[in-house]
Amino acid sequence: MISRVLSADLHGYGGQRVQIAGWVHRRRQLKSVSFLIVRDRSGLTQVVCPPGDDLPPEESVVEVTGTVTWAEGGVELTEPQITVISEPVKAPPFDLYRPTVPATLPTILDHAPVALRHPALRQPLEISAASVAGFRATLDGLGFTEVHTPKIVESATESGANVFALDYFGRPAYLAQSPQFYKQMMVGVFERVYEVGPVFRAEPHDTARHLAQYTSLDVEFGFVEDHRDVMALLRECLAGMVESVRLRVPGVPLPEVPQEIPSIHFAEVTGEQDLSPAQERELSEWALREHGSDFLFVTGYPMAKRPFYTHPDPARPGYSNGFDLLFRGLELVTGGQRLHRHADYLAALEARGEPAEPYEGYLQAFAYGMPPHGGFAIGLERWTARLTGAANVRQTTAFPRDLHRLSP
Amino acid sequence: MISRVLSADLHGYGGQRVQIAGWVHRRRQLKSVSFLIVRDRSGLTQVVCPPGDDLPPEESVVEVTGTVTWAEGGVELTEPQITVISEPVKAPPFDLYRPTVPATLPTILDHAPVALRHPALRQPLEISAASVAGFRATLDGLGFTEVHTPKIVESATESGANVFALDYFGRPAYLAQSPQFYKQMMVGVFERVYEVGPVFRAEPHDTARHLAQYTSLDVEFGFVEDHRDVMALLRECLAGMVESVRLRVPGVPLPEVPQEIPSIHFAEVTGEQDLSPAQERELSEWALREHGSDFLFVTGYPMAKRPFYTHPDPARPGYSNGFDLLFRGLELVTGGQRLHRHADYLAALEARGEPAEPYEGYLQAFAYGMPPHGGFAIGLERWTARLTGAANVRQTTAFPRDLHRLSP
Repeated sequence: MISRVLSADLHGYGGQRVQIAGWVHRRRQLKSVSFLIVRDRSGLTQVVCPPGDDLPPEESVVEVTGTVTWAEGGVELTEPQITVISEPVKAPPFDLYRPTVPATLPTILDHAPVALRHPALRQPLEISAASVAGFRATLDGLGFTEVHTPKIVESATESGANVFALDYFGRPAYLAQSPQFYKQMMVGVFERVYEVGPVFRAEPHDTARHLAQYTSLDVEFGFVEDHRDVMALLRECLAGMVESVRLRVPGVPLPEVPQEIPSIHFAEVTGEQDLSPAQERELSEWALREHGSDFLFVTGYPMAKRPFYTHPDPARPGYSNGFDLLFRGLELVTGGQRLHRHADYLAALEARGEPAEPYEGYLQAFAYGMPPHGGFAIGLERWTARLTGAANVRQTTAFPRDLHRLSP
Repeated sequence: MISRVLSADLHGYGGQRVQIAGWVHRRRQLKSVSFLIVRDRSGLTQVVCPPGDDLPPEESVVEVTGTVTWAEGGVELTEPQITVISEPVKAPPFDLYRPTVPATLPTILDHAPVALRHPALRQPLEISAASVAGFRATLDGLGFTEVHTPKIVESATESGANVFALDYFGRPAYLAQSPQFYKQMMVGVFERVYEVGPVFRAEPHDTARHLAQYTSLDVEFGFVEDHRDVMALLRECLAGMVESVRLRVPGVPLPEVPQEIPSIHFAEVTGEQDLSPAQERELSEWALREHGSDFLFVTGYPMAKRPFYTHPDPARPGYSNGFDLLFRGLELVTGGQRLHRHADYLAALEARGEPAEPYEGYLQAFAYGMPPHGGFAIGLERWTARLTGAANVRQTTAFPRDLHRLSP
């Protein structure tokens, strides 16, 4: 491996000759001196060059050997020897070194392989990675097992609409919209499972908060009393995610996750069957004002609006043990307690006029004994968008897929 | 949450009344006493019941309150009060309590939600999860960033054959056969990236080692000298995976990962263009005999058999800086150094008579300056199959997808 020192570690090498390697982030040629700013995965280094030197253009890959010299605000490299490893064949579509991004979203997305090198565009992906690490660490510490479930499924049963169809060796098949059925089945095996993986929605609307593929952080676990245990676990996961971002991506303003996230019952909110985006925003404002919380649980969604596997609220006919979590005005998580008795599944399907046959594999789990259980799914891109204040969820994933976009 | 003690923790509660919860693994009614074996995620507990008691059938979900009593070989619960939470509606397709699995592979796969509750069938999935945790921990410790890349792609370009086609909002699209292009692009952003995710192959052959969906452990990183740096990193990952299994799934016989994995050049092995499965087995036997190693690198694969992005061996025309890793007779990993100069990509595509246009997004990364880089992909199911000695890769994933199987 090229023997090199990272930018972030240079301060430990004061006075020594070292080699760094990275991309030319910026060259600045002044009258009396020139600067080459080199970017590596850890940060930036200023290289001080004699005036008039012919400096490689931005995004060239270079190795620089130089002397680590203390300067105002840190260290820089002086007396450099610069070797160009690889040269760009054209200039980037916009300047990657400007503090704010001088480009529109379509330009950024069309040029993702180079645009994401801009530190401000890269940061949401770092936050995503740190969040997922915190999610996993929280669950690993609680005895959960990671699973990998099929993304190609036989029937478009779970939510019906908005599925991608594909040709599976001459048979019709569909891309999974969620690992819901599989994670429930695996509760019978491991009690506590999670999955981080892609889910697919043939979302026909072009909005700032929908993607055709997104990363779902899925949890399901058994031996719960009811949905409140699920909400308590979700709170732990969110706290772990925030803490992981705090440790791994310094300088990001982060929300506080209250010890107990405030909660409001659906019936107290509206007489309608669902919440509108405007209502979600208003409720979030209320939670912030009244409880100082960026998070709000809305519990007890009407059974009529929840999937057939939702557990009803035993105390309140028509309402469910299902919840949503709002985060800064947006639905971030859907979760709840599920049915666990085989007979309840058959009755729920019959009540909806659905045959049981397409669900045969899924229903097996319940035919052989299942504990009370529940779970939730966090949309990773929405989470990151809300954390970073990104107006569009497309800014939080490297290569978004939507109604119009299938490349790069 | 139901307040319960796990089987594995009972020994800390000697003499106390506690509650456990889980599945009835087995009931044994003898003349003078009855036993109920309860299974939870941590293990098994024997509950001693009065003779003649009517015990719930296998796979019932139960809560048992009892006194933790020392017995031969550990603790058991005595003076139990048993509450049935949920009852099976039929008997499992085979006895889950027998030490060896009394069922054929098709029976197991058809009944996966219940079959995987058998400890011997569950264990490969535990080994998978532990392996992935070790893979991530190794890379996190080396400054790698986790990425999530598109599984729906615009062109079937990378390897051409065996892709699944789908209808993407009225346009043709394909399921990604690997994150190869995306992980390379992300080297320009993060230098060091990995992804754990599903990949899809419309594999028309019904073999014991191919799946239509499998989990790929992908790595790519920049600033390498050549493929030997990639091989050294792969060795670290394998060691981390083995160590993680050792810690998390006790009792699994594990291979030693040599400090330096032995290596043989393709040209020393055969005059053919590829290795047959029989040759892979022979080479592995040789490595075990001569070097005491379960692992063997085969380096320098002919350029003609490697994808266009493969870096040639500068010292040996016709051969590449690409390698495979054989593990106990099977190809487990493919990796190598990649081209990094834009002009080299254009030349490589032209030499193969391929237009550059379908690769436009991918080639952007190289147009803007890329370091020498390389990477590899480990097939998770093959790894687990080789570790466990499973004859069929279908035994190492919960819900396999193949030519004939699309459910459960």
